[in-house]
Amino acid sequence: MTAKVLSLRPRGTPSLSGLMVLAGPGLTAVNHVIIDRMQSPVALIPELAGHLIAGGGKRLRPMLTLGCAALLDYGGTRHHKLAAAVEFIHTATLLHDDVVDASGLRRGKATANRLWGNPASVLVGDFLFSRAFELMVEDGSLRVLKILSSASAIIAEGEVAQLTAQREVETSEDRYLEIITAKTAALFSAACQISGVVAERGPDVENALESYGRNLGIAFQLVDDAIDFVSDADTMGKDVGDDFRDGKVTLPIILAYARGSEDERQFWRDAMRGKRVGPEDLIEAQRLLGTSNAISDTMARARHYGARAMDALSGFPNGPARRALTETVEFAIARAY
Amino acid sequence: MTAKVLSLRPRGTPSLSGLMVLAGPGLTAVNHVIIDRMQSPVALIPELAGHLIAGGGKRLRPMLTLGCAALLDYGGTRHHKLAAAVEFIHTATLLHDDVVDASGLRRGKATANRLWGNPASVLVGDFLFSRAFELMVEDGSLRVLKILSSASAIIAEGEVAQLTAQREVETSEDRYLEIITAKTAALFSAACQISGVVAERGPDVENALESYGRNLGIAFQLVDDAIDFVSDADTMGKDVGDDFRDGKVTLPIILAYARGSEDERQFWRDAMRGKRVGPEDLIEAQRLLGTSNAISDTMARARHYGARAMDALSGFPNGPARRALTETVEFAIARAY
Repeated sequence: MTAKVLSLRPRGTPSLSGLMVLAGPGLTAVNHVIIDRMQSPVALIPELAGHLIAGGGKRLRPMLTLGCAALLDYGGTRHHKLAAAVEFIHTATLLHDDVVDASGLRRGKATANRLWGNPASVLVGDFLFSRAFELMVEDGSLRVLKILSSASAIIAEGEVAQLTAQREVETSEDRYLEIITAKTAALFSAACQISGVVAERGPDVENALESYGRNLGIAFQLVDDAIDFVSDADTMGKDVGDDFRDGKVTLPIILAYARGSEDERQFWRDAMRGKRVGPEDLIEAQRLLGTSNAISDTMARARHYGARAMDALSGFPNGPARRALTETVEFAIARAY
Repeated sequence: MTAKVLSLRPRGTPSLSGLMVLAGPGLTAVNHVIIDRMQSPVALIPELAGHLIAGGGKRLRPMLTLGCAALLDYGGTRHHKLAAAVEFIHTATLLHDDVVDASGLRRGKATANRLWGNPASVLVGDFLFSRAFELMVEDGSLRVLKILSSASAIIAEGEVAQLTAQREVETSEDRYLEIITAKTAALFSAACQISGVVAERGPDVENALESYGRNLGIAFQLVDDAIDFVSDADTMGKDVGDDFRDGKVTLPIILAYARGSEDERQFWRDAMRGKRVGPEDLIEAQRLLGTSNAISDTMARARHYGARAMDALSGFPNGPARRALTETVEFAIARAY
């Protein structure tokens, strides 16, 4: 009992170090697959892909695959190729996202589309996406192929839905959650679930891992949305207010709009239509988000999904793997503080 | 013998009607799969995809899958989903190509990127690509998945290679053939080969169909390259000289450049760098292509690959299916005349 009480005391800032220790040896193998399989006789492909793949990404999704495999005491190596496939799908969506958003900065570096142009980013994204499927086919599990092809279609569907909702400040919270469940959480959940498939642990375990990944993914995205208004380029590699200036309707704005006076709603409508993109407009946006508790309540929503992610693991034995996956949730949320 | 001699006499203009008769009933089933599986609750997806899918495409690749299945007397229906997957992959690459080339006109209609913008075209392309893999996973053949995921990676690789070679007038004929074998012929060959897989006819049959599709695809692309200088928007749905003005180095230009005087080479260098995009420059290009026999020799190359495609079918019984597939090659080549 004493130990349990102690573990509930406030600790230091949550970090990914537990997951990194857990995933470390596997991650080396995954990185070998990634480097090996992004090669091509067409030099622009590894050059452009390497910029993003080697460029400071956390490898969070492949680490989740590895962490879930550790949770299940899976002793094989099949998940290495599959974790690389997940990272390729993620990289392909980032390349296409930056074209779609005309972004110039990601993870503190110039984006591939700024350096090599939109055409190259579109096509190298297509290449990585195809390569991801080749890796899955080599593994040979139709169940994994089904999970990841379905996730890919759902991601694309979510991205188109977000495009449609762009600048639509009246998007409901429900609708917004559907969109981020598709565009962000689907790959988190697939990355976790496939470890249950290769470990052959049955549908209950698969579902628990899927739920962990999905809820973590939603929490992760909501924190990202909040961070856009509170962080700066140093800490997150993009400028504060990027989403705001792009007219991206995220949960903080949805809440502030819904709770606002008619004048305030007009401000948000103007802002999302691109009529308020100056520094003083961002300050006004931050003021309104504060008075309406929109940021703190977005974080409360994120904590709700984070709690569900942690509880999804309740059927698994308490040990280093479960602790690392739990701390990953805490880390995802603590980024905003 | 008499019949054989008669069949060698000049016939009317070759058409796709034989293939259409052969593929007709199957194509109805394939079209049902296509329409059914391009649906999404996100309305923009079927709207944008439908513009291209319903918009006057010949369905040549799925018809090849159907025609090859008929050649093998395959009596099942598995190839319907797979032919739809092939068309989805093709449609996804067209959507992305039009973004890459900033094209405004395809098949005589405004392109999707002109009507809905680049972001929507990129993302709906991603959706169709994912949906194609979902269809293959539903079929469940890992061999088909391997053929089509490999083809997809090769296509993307070929597109990036073409981007790299863009405006490079010193591209060799060998290099150019590698590029079009990847970007165009890989999907033709996969579309044909997968019928051999579902009909379970063994590697020799698969290889023959792969060869037929690959050689037909190369011939098809070379004729397309030639048509750019001789046709007009009425007959092919894009303007004459589109490739020329885009600085696309195709075989006619490669041949004219290699055979040209220093002055002529300078003209092609300037043209590919975008310094000669006026109507009088196109006329000069056409003149140089004529004096160097570059168009007629591009067509000779196309006939060479067409002949190889027809001979790849020599092991199959002479019947309506083989005749239709042979006439498809003749049709592909006759488009330029």
